[in-house]
Amino acid sequence: MQRTLINTIKKQVGKKVKICGFIHTIRDQGNIKFVLVRDTSGTIQTVVTKINKEAFQTAKSLNLESVVEIIGLVKEEGQAPDGIEIEIKEIKILSQAALELPIPVTKKTKNEASEVKRLNFRWLDLRKPEKLLIFKVWTEMEKAFREYWLKHGYIQIHSPKLMSTASESGAEVFEVKYFNRKAYLAQSPQFYKQMAMAAGFEKVFEVGPAFRAEPSFTPRHATEFTGYDAEISFIKSHQDVIKEEEKLLVFALQKIKEKFGKEILKAYRRQLIVPETPFPQVTMKEAKEILKKMKVPSEKQDDLSPEEERKLSKYFKKIKNHEFVFVTEYPIEVRPFYHMRKETGPSVTKSYDLLYNGIEITTGAQREHRYEILKKQAEEKGVNLKSIQNYLNFFKYGCPPHGGMGIGPERMLMKIFNIKSIREVAYLYRGVKRLEP
Amino acid sequence: MQRTLINTIKKQVGKKVKICGFIHTIRDQGNIKFVLVRDTSGTIQTVVTKINKEAFQTAKSLNLESVVEIIGLVKEEGQAPDGIEIEIKEIKILSQAALELPIPVTKKTKNEASEVKRLNFRWLDLRKPEKLLIFKVWTEMEKAFREYWLKHGYIQIHSPKLMSTASESGAEVFEVKYFNRKAYLAQSPQFYKQMAMAAGFEKVFEVGPAFRAEPSFTPRHATEFTGYDAEISFIKSHQDVIKEEEKLLVFALQKIKEKFGKEILKAYRRQLIVPETPFPQVTMKEAKEILKKMKVPSEKQDDLSPEEERKLSKYFKKIKNHEFVFVTEYPIEVRPFYHMRKETGPSVTKSYDLLYNGIEITTGAQREHRYEILKKQAEEKGVNLKSIQNYLNFFKYGCPPHGGMGIGPERMLMKIFNIKSIREVAYLYRGVKRLEP
Repeated sequence: MQRTLINTIKKQVGKKVKICGFIHTIRDQGNIKFVLVRDTSGTIQTVVTKINKEAFQTAKSLNLESVVEIIGLVKEEGQAPDGIEIEIKEIKILSQAALELPIPVTKKTKNEASEVKRLNFRWLDLRKPEKLLIFKVWTEMEKAFREYWLKHGYIQIHSPKLMSTASESGAEVFEVKYFNRKAYLAQSPQFYKQMAMAAGFEKVFEVGPAFRAEPSFTPRHATEFTGYDAEISFIKSHQDVIKEEEKLLVFALQKIKEKFGKEILKAYRRQLIVPETPFPQVTMKEAKEILKKMKVPSEKQDDLSPEEERKLSKYFKKIKNHEFVFVTEYPIEVRPFYHMRKETGPSVTKSYDLLYNGIEITTGAQREHRYEILKKQAEEKGVNLKSIQNYLNFFKYGCPPHGGMGIGPERMLMKIFNIKSIREVAYLYRGVKRLEP
Repeated sequence: MQRTLINTIKKQVGKKVKICGFIHTIRDQGNIKFVLVRDTSGTIQTVVTKINKEAFQTAKSLNLESVVEIIGLVKEEGQAPDGIEIEIKEIKILSQAALELPIPVTKKTKNEASEVKRLNFRWLDLRKPEKLLIFKVWTEMEKAFREYWLKHGYIQIHSPKLMSTASESGAEVFEVKYFNRKAYLAQSPQFYKQMAMAAGFEKVFEVGPAFRAEPSFTPRHATEFTGYDAEISFIKSHQDVIKEEEKLLVFALQKIKEKFGKEILKAYRRQLIVPETPFPQVTMKEAKEILKKMKVPSEKQDDLSPEEERKLSKYFKKIKNHEFVFVTEYPIEVRPFYHMRKETGPSVTKSYDLLYNGIEITTGAQREHRYEILKKQAEEKGVNLKSIQNYLNFFKYGCPPHGGMGIGPERMLMKIFNIKSIREVAYLYRGVKRLEP
């Protein structure tokens, strides 16, 4: 007998079905037991009475979160949720849960388990349908990103995470014991997606993990996270990258809203908005002027603090009714050596960050592809040329002008759901003090 | 003016177009120069004569593999490849290549550069159209895998690669300096895709890197490679996993053949075959009997050597005309503790390997989801229970019966193209002595 998914049972009234899932709740009324069963598609009420001796006996030993297989008759029942229930014919316990659950899965208690405890038992926390929803949306989001990329001729790469030198700054990089030498974990696929440009791939994307040895405890940071990276050739400036990102995000948010907009609204009270194009833009210099007028304290002259990012986003939400804002022309001091500098004002780079409701979700730029200039910029920044010679070589034998972006899907999800911490959207959060489970 | 991709130029005879790409070849006939330009879509002949002074002057300074932007008139020309050429109006050098290329990109010399040299300058080697084809096919292959998974209700996960303990055997794992403690790089997402089953996700897939500190120099091994992993709940045995894999592979190979079959045949003389289902199956015991009859030397009694894998594949190619064969029922000695054991013959596991033309591309199994039995099996294998307690906990609070597979896309590509070494299909191969570029 084939298994039926719970959300398709409504069409099967009068029929015998087999369902599989977890025990969501149990309501015991002596001679009759109501058992709510949950699978990925939803929940359904099942019912068993004393008349069915064997099944009733089995049902007696059930406890919350055990896994069962039930064969039964689908019936209309006005009192049941959704007006439908399954009269149990046979019930089989596939996996018995321990009596005591370390964190509640289904009971809506006022005092939810602490974050630490929920992270310790992440797989139980993820059983909650509103948590599963995050991963359904993530799956849809990535599907949409890929659909966009593939439709526009991008090639996918899987670049190595083990490198002989640090991929970016050299700071905050994890060291790996690699046979009789050292290796480092890639902080991003930056160098290798640029290599694809030098290889003539023209447009590439990569989805993969990135690692940062940042001793940071903020709710926006993780030591390991997912990167959506893209790089494109034959651009005129970072504005071409910005245009591409706008199209990509609109496409993805449209797809998410179509499929999950209602569920997101119901579970998280968040009305997902598909943004208008073009997104607002502001140069770093202009941003600082706006923030000064708003009397937001400035920590650094050349960069935005988290507080400034939030305030700037709020400002553009208010005056442009837009949840996104591109901050462009970051000063060279706060950007890596490989960002191209603006021809007309060489103290700023052809780069940008994208803020989404107060959080940075992307860094993008046109890259410097001219070998001599790139070398000079590295030297100016005090980068050891020998350590990046393998990278510099990419630009010796012809390389198209190019640029790209790195998008953080976890941070996007935080804003799609209005969830305050990255720990709640990562499948398994990794932080300074967290490597388990 | 918008850029035109080279493979669409045929439709533009009589029109002015802009193309961008690399200088593939230069043929100089004094007053006339023929320049073959290459982009991701193909190559085209461009031509410039002395009459166009400025362009001719620029063309003089061109060298192989420089990057150019050309505006010109599309003309029919019987002598040109494909009967078409572009009469250059303007030419701009976007990036000048060094005069001396460390490895030849376009010239078909008899003595191709050595593997080491080609890997050192991987981005130049990848400019060859037949190398780019590998990544176009990989992109299509992954697209097909995902299409299959998404159509069948799988949820995608991105599981962490940083773990507090070794994910499988404990041997051959890379150690990471993680703040003031140690972390390890995941050898596979095994534990975490099983966690998704315990979380009730039912069907998950993951695409990501896997790391093995194997001091191995064979052409099948790399220290970092890509894994296509899937795990499904509510199965009856490993045969359900096998059935799922058959459907997945047939779907993917069908898609690849439709889109790239002709190009693969032309560039690699490989006639791609979409396999029939069901694939042949043989138990390990039967396999050993067949190999004995064929007088193939057996290194290990319980496992297959690479030589045995090749011979066994050849045998099934011959008698069943099939490029795939599932080897099932591996003895418990050669399988990890979490493989479920066969009820009727507990000395073997409910597991399998899949061979594709002589190479193992998958390991799959039903997993042991019963806490007490799992613990016992780990103990029997001498696994330190404390080190896997986080993993064992997944099975304490209800977990559906489940199983899954890990597929190696690089190895699949080796067989799709008939390429002998994984170093040629990985975007950037990583081995004991290779972390660069």
